[in-house]
Amino acid sequence: MKILVSNDDGYLAPGIIALVEALRPIAEVVVVAPDSNRSGSSNSLTLDRPLSVYRADNGFYFVNGTPSDCVHVALTGGLAFRPDLVVSGINQGQNMGDDTLYSGTVAAATEGFLFGIPAIAFSQAEKGWAHIDAAACVARDIVVRGFDMLQKPYLLNINIPNLPYEQIKGIRAARLGKRHESEPVIKALDPHGREIFWIGPAGKAKDAGEGTDFRTVSDGFVSVTPLQIDLTHSQQLGVLQKALP
Amino acid sequence: MKILVSNDDGYLAPGIIALVEALRPIAEVVVVAPDSNRSGSSNSLTLDRPLSVYRADNGFYFVNGTPSDCVHVALTGGLAFRPDLVVSGINQGQNMGDDTLYSGTVAAATEGFLFGIPAIAFSQAEKGWAHIDAAACVARDIVVRGFDMLQKPYLLNINIPNLPYEQIKGIRAARLGKRHESEPVIKALDPHGREIFWIGPAGKAKDAGEGTDFRTVSDGFVSVTPLQIDLTHSQQLGVLQKALP
Amino acid sequence: MKILVSNDDGYLAPGIIALVEALRPIAEVVVVAPDSNRSGSSNSLTLDRPLSVYRADNGFYFVNGTPSDCVHVALTGGLAFRPDLVVSGINQGQNMGDDTLYSGTVAAATEGFLFGIPAIAFSQAEKGWAHIDAAACVARDIVVRGFDMLQKPYLLNINIPNLPYEQIKGIRAARLGKRHESEPVIKALDPHGREIFWIGPAGKAKDAGEGTDFRTVSDGFVSVTPLQIDLTHSQQLGVLQKALP
Amino acid sequence: MKILVSNDDGYLAPGIIALVEALRPIAEVVVVAPDSNRSGSSNSLTLDRPLSVYRADNGFYFVNGTPSDCVHVALTGGLAFRPDLVVSGINQGQNMGDDTLYSGTVAAATEGFLFGIPAIAFSQAEKGWAHIDAAACVARDIVVRGFDMLQKPYLLNINIPNLPYEQIKGIRAARLGKRHESEPVIKALDPHGREIFWIGPAGKAKDAGEGTDFRTVSDGFVSVTPLQIDLTHSQQLGVLQKALP
Repeated sequence: MKILVSNDDGYLAPGIIALVEALRPIAEVVVVAPDSNRSGSSNSLTLDRPLSVYRADNGFYFVNGTPSDCVHVALTGGLAFRPDLVVSGINQGQNMGDDTLYSGTVAAATEGFLFGIPAIAFSQAEKGWAHIDAAACVARDIVVRGFDMLQKPYLLNINIPNLPYEQIKGIRAARLGKRHESEPVIKALDPHGREIFWIGPAGKAKDAGEGTDFRTVSDGFVSVTPLQIDLTHSQQLGVLQKALP
Repeated sequence: MKILVSNDDGYLAPGIIALVEALRPIAEVVVVAPDSNRSGSSNSLTLDRPLSVYRADNGFYFVNGTPSDCVHVALTGGLAFRPDLVVSGINQGQNMGDDTLYSGTVAAATEGFLFGIPAIAFSQAEKGWAHIDAAACVARDIVVRGFDMLQKPYLLNINIPNLPYEQIKGIRAARLGKRHESEPVIKALDPHGREIFWIGPAGKAKDAGEGTDFRTVSDGFVSVTPLQIDLTHSQQLGVLQKALP
Repeated sequence: MKILVSNDDGYLAPGIIALVEALRPIAEVVVVAPDSNRSGSSNSLTLDRPLSVYRADNGFYFVNGTPSDCVHVALTGGLAFRPDLVVSGINQGQNMGDDTLYSGTVAAATEGFLFGIPAIAFSQAEKGWAHIDAAACVARDIVVRGFDMLQKPYLLNINIPNLPYEQIKGIRAARLGKRHESEPVIKALDPHGREIFWIGPAGKAKDAGEGTDFRTVSDGFVSVTPLQIDLTHSQQLGVLQKALP
Repeated sequence: MKILVSNDDGYLAPGIIALVEALRPIAEVVVVAPDSNRSGSSNSLTLDRPLSVYRADNGFYFVNGTPSDCVHVALTGGLAFRPDLVVSGINQGQNMGDDTLYSGTVAAATEGFLFGIPAIAFSQAEKGWAHIDAAACVARDIVVRGFDMLQKPYLLNINIPNLPYEQIKGIRAARLGKRHESEPVIKALDPHGREIFWIGPAGKAKDAGEGTDFRTVSDGFVSVTPLQIDLTHSQQLGVLQKALP
């Protein structure tokens, strides 16, 4: 199996290093990841300047661009192989509910999916890298298992609780929950007395009910959410078609 | 009516200037837009540095950040009013099919929607600003019309053909089409002989059939696509739930 | 006379607009300036990506780069004319003493000088643009006067007090003063509790004695300092030559 | 002895790693360097956003800023020690003649000097890191030797030929040479057919005569140039004083 690995925390992040170590025994792995932390970059692509690809001492390739840039360049720019799977992460911190819209981790996987390749995004629920090796083992387990019951290409968003491997209760399918509105921006003054604004944290879970990724992970399970990318609101489309004859 | 206007082409772009001129007679308009062109920025948020808000001579506010940053700061940072509507655009070039994932124009509207406010993203089908004033008239018509038949908040993605106002055939509901894979990256050499990579253009339309935004606009109509943002793939979720008991 | 104008506050800054208005009656003026505020950019050049040149509605060209980039591109990239003079500014805030090392305003002029063209950097002593039109009149007076007594190309650093035109006492030659060490960085916490650092203000004047730019301006005169760019410390070189036979 | 080390090639560059390994046996070394390549950054300071300081696994600190930012933050932001010496490099490629104006390597040393600390900038004459370990040995030799004959603080710009250690002929004091004008910008087209511009290479040596850094290094010696930072052109100042009474 050939796996392309990327992330949004940058090629030096503990999450991608642990992931690659876990995958190397079972697959041919190529890493193409951002040169620095690009958290929150969503599906952004760099259109106004060219990208450069560099090779680190450990063989990882890194790019002065976004997660989507990395996968895009890797898949269309002449990697010697076409991967069987694109894997992204392991992200520092959860990507649940509406987070998936903003996440660079999910975006890297989405880019693979858009090129017709099955793709999986992995995130740890809590920041700080606690039990990252356990999360990497979980990721390997999931990659090995395969998802032959799903249509290919599939796109999976997976969140892993920060627990020791043996305390993780299992793997469960889950839908995306919903969050409340984000917290307000945090205002501060720069040293010249001018107002500056920091984007505040994501909102608290609003729908964290049974079957959501929020509930699944807080119950100690790994959540697996199959994603699709057609944003058409089918129900409202019907309403609108009647109104706009 | 109070309208917050943003875009991804930057606060100086002809598209946002025409849009604001068209909306001013019918609403109280506040502009908060990026300081420069941020095309392709998707829903990215700036998390690693604070944002600054500036006021231009024409009263537009501009921000050293992404479209999502602009709307986020506007809605949570203390605009004196809460808008009834968030409007984004008019973008230079279409946002149809999978483009919606990458578009900063759509992202600005999405950010409003996530804060519970109806939101509309406007794009012109072709680049170059031909008939931008006609497109602005169309945008005003659509804002005036309202969409009372839709659940609030709604999120609409609208593409306008570059035609004189009187040649536009009407407004139609449409689903997002699909594109083929993007074109490959374009390789070049920098002056030092190092390989560089430009992200290539979006793929050609793959599903441009009856009822898609592609077809609707090429037929000379304005396409209106209601969007939703829950990426859960419900059908595959059911399959997965059976497989992961 | 043909004049190339640049600055480091960006092509939209009041200082460059006032300067160009003052110079237009006496010269053919072309503006090539940064797209945004690049204060503190010193002589930095952009080497890792290409630059783009855009044309604003008012005819100004702007570049997604540093002041030095702007002048460099203008002089080697095919302006239809070779300017007789490069003028930079009018900067918001003084560039005296050691400031000249960090100043993008001075750097833009220096770039012209390095290409063999006489160059003048203009700065207002205080921030806030008070009496900017008076400063622009002073700039025009100085450009008109010429400096035929100086070897060509010359490089002049000029600081103008923020006074009404008729209250400016005259123009005087001055040497660069010296500053005390910069103020310490200003520590703050970002919203995640991580320490961040803002570069603090420049130090107070240490040598502001008779004949310095500091004294000249505080006495109500315009200071004119001829600059050179050979950083060799001749006196210490002699000492070192004896010690390293 | 306590030494602060920085550079402009980024904290991962082979030049700074070799330098630190060579200095560790003889001094307490703290590294504060840019997070990525900042070649050509001159004395630029980051004034419009705060800086963050990170610690890499090898103990190096890195900053999302320029070389001058790094030294500035290190010296005013609370390093536990005040260094006896600031060392910058080893740069990939020469910094001779007018290069010193643009060099981030020289700028990092200059920043230390401005805070009253002796400072040395090291560069290898050719790019590619050939004989970088020999260059690091040279750097250590020079640091050990001290420069007690010079006034403190001194600021030294040192260029090292890419030769095996035993083939380096010695160390010589040298003045900065001069270069011809830079090569023109290199024009290209981006994939959308828009013209883009790359800054071209530095000009060829114009004054590479006896006693210059160019000549000294091409003769196989290490060149040592003491620098000063007062840009006042004393001779022209006298002329100007007579002309502006």
